[in-house]
Amino acid sequence: MKIAVLGAGGMGSRFGLYLHRAGNEVVMIDGWKANVDAIRANGLKADLNGTEIVDRIPVFTPEEADKADMNADLIIVLVKAPQLEGILEAVKPLFKEDTHVICLMNGIGHEDVLKKYVKPENILLGVTMWTAGMKGPGSVELLGDGYVEIQELYPEGKEEALKIIDAFDKAGLRPKYSENLHYSIYRKACINGVINTLCALMDCNMMELAAMPYTADISRKIVSEFAACAAKEGVTLDQEEVNKAILVSCEPEHIGKHYPSMYQDLINNHRKTEIDYINGAISRKGKRYDVPTPYCDLITELIHNKEQFIGAK
Amino acid sequence: MKIAVLGAGGMGSRFGLYLHRAGNEVVMIDGWKANVDAIRANGLKADLNGTEIVDRIPVFTPEEADKADMNADLIIVLVKAPQLEGILEAVKPLFKEDTHVICLMNGIGHEDVLKKYVKPENILLGVTMWTAGMKGPGSVELLGDGYVEIQELYPEGKEEALKIIDAFDKAGLRPKYSENLHYSIYRKACINGVINTLCALMDCNMMELAAMPYTADISRKIVSEFAACAAKEGVTLDQEEVNKAILVSCEPEHIGKHYPSMYQDLINNHRKTEIDYINGAISRKGKRYDVPTPYCDLITELIHNKEQFIGAK
Repeated sequence: MKIAVLGAGGMGSRFGLYLHRAGNEVVMIDGWKANVDAIRANGLKADLNGTEIVDRIPVFTPEEADKADMNADLIIVLVKAPQLEGILEAVKPLFKEDTHVICLMNGIGHEDVLKKYVKPENILLGVTMWTAGMKGPGSVELLGDGYVEIQELYPEGKEEALKIIDAFDKAGLRPKYSENLHYSIYRKACINGVINTLCALMDCNMMELAAMPYTADISRKIVSEFAACAAKEGVTLDQEEVNKAILVSCEPEHIGKHYPSMYQDLINNHRKTEIDYINGAISRKGKRYDVPTPYCDLITELIHNKEQFIGAK
Repeated sequence: MKIAVLGAGGMGSRFGLYLHRAGNEVVMIDGWKANVDAIRANGLKADLNGTEIVDRIPVFTPEEADKADMNADLIIVLVKAPQLEGILEAVKPLFKEDTHVICLMNGIGHEDVLKKYVKPENILLGVTMWTAGMKGPGSVELLGDGYVEIQELYPEGKEEALKIIDAFDKAGLRPKYSENLHYSIYRKACINGVINTLCALMDCNMMELAAMPYTADISRKIVSEFAACAAKEGVTLDQEEVNKAILVSCEPEHIGKHYPSMYQDLINNHRKTEIDYINGAISRKGKRYDVPTPYCDLITELIHNKEQFIGAK
C-alpha cells in the first residue's frame, strides 16, 4: 500500500514506522523543520519498549509534498488540530482520484475540515489507544501496548476500512473494526475534555488532579454536557462508565504521574492546544442543538486565555 | 465610643487607627500571633500615604478577649471569611446587651453567620472602598483615598447607623449612609467575583487579565449570574455598568498592575480564600432560587481544588 502519514510526531511516527517495517511504501509529512531535518539526516529513531530502532523513511515538509512523488492509496492524518487545514491544503499533490484518508487525531469534528479537501465517501475515522511521545527532533518513545478502532464515515468506505484493517493488522497495529466509532470518539474526547484541560488549568499531573476535592463533580458536569450533545447525534454515552474510567486512569498504578498532552503543549511547549476540538467542539454543538454547555464553554475560554497569556504559538 | 475591631490586617488596622486617633476607646483582636506580638512590642505602624505613624492600641488574640476588659458599644468585623465564625465565638466577653456589630468584610452572606452570635436588629453592614495592605507583622500600608457605605440590616438599627456615621466622619473615614447597601454589596462582590478569581486561576495581574481575549465574555456571564440572584432579592444590578467598571479598574492607569487579594491569599500566602462568600455564595443562592449559576459553580470548584493542591491553610 502507498501510504502518506501526515504528522511525524510521536503517534504519526508509530504508524509510519510500523507500516514501513511491514513492507508498505510510506512517506511522512511534517511541518516542524528541525524534525524533518533530523529524520533525513539520521533516520527516524524510536525507543520501542526499550529496544532502539532506526528506520529510513522518506520525509518532507508540507511545502515539499510534490517532491514526495507519491499517488497515495491512503493518507493517515495525525497532526495537531490547529495544523490540519494548512497541511491538507499543502499535500494536494499526494492525492489521486481514489485516495482514502483516515483521521486518527484526538477530538471531535475533524471530519468537517476533512470534507473540504476529501470526497466524503473516501473519509474514514479512527481512535487510537496507543501511546507515543517525542524525545526530540527525529526521536520518539513508543511504550506499552494499544489498539486502534476504525470505521468508515459513509457506508461506501466500508471496503476500504477492511483493507486498512488488513494492512494495520499485518503491521502489528492491532486494528479493530468498530460498528460505533462515533461512540469511541465521544468517549475519548470526553476523557480528554476532563483530564487534559483540568491538568493544564490546575498545573498538575493526573494523580494530583484526581486527589482534588471537586474533580469528580467537575468531571460529572463535563461528561453530562458531552453526553447531551452526543445524544443529539444518536450516541448514548454511558456517563457512569466514562466518569469511572477518568478516575481509574488517574490512579498512580495507571498513568497517574503522567502530564497529559494538553499540559505538555501549553505549559511545557507553549503551543496552542486542541481545545477547540474537545470542549470547544461541545460548545459549538451545544449552540447548534440548543443544549447548555457552560462548563465546556468556560473551560474553553480559560484555556484560550491562558494560551494568549503565555504566548502560545 | 468603645470600639473593638476584629481583624488587625490592613483594613482592620486602618479603621482601628483612624478611630483611635479620633479619641475613641479602641481595642483590636487578631488571630495572627506574630502580628499581635509585634503591635504589642512596637505599636501599630502605618505608612499613611508616605507618612510613617505609630499608634499604641491595645491588641489581643481571640483567646485573650476577656483580658480586653471592654463592654463594646460597637464591634467592627474585618477578618477573612473563613475566620469569622471562630472569632465571633471567641470574643463573646466583649459583648454587652446592646453591643452593635458592623460587618465591613468583602463578600455576600456574612450576616447569616453574624445572626448566630448577634441579635439581628443589632447588625449593620457596610462596604469599604478604602484600600489597605500588610507589609508584615504590625506594619500596614494605607494609601490613597476612599469611603465607606453603611446601612442597618433591619430598620431598628438605623439610629445606630447614624451614630456610627458620626463617629466615622469625625475619624476621617468618609462614611455615607446608603439607602441600598445590598446593591453596593452585590456590585463589589461581583467585581471581586470576576477579577480576584480569574487572576488567581490564570496566575496574572489585573492588566494581564483584561488583555486576555475571553475575559470580557467570562465577565458578562459571571455578572449575569450575580444579577439573576440579586434580582430574586429585589436588587436590580446594572450589568453594563458593572462590566464596564471591571474593565476600567484593570486599566494600567488605575490599579491594573495590582495582584488582587485572592491572588495574594492563594498564590503568595497559601491561605484559604473568600471564594465561598463571593462566587460560592452565588452558587448557594442559585440552588435556593432555582437559578443556574454554572460559571460561579465551576470557578468556586476550581479555586477550592487549587487551595487543596497548594496546601492552603
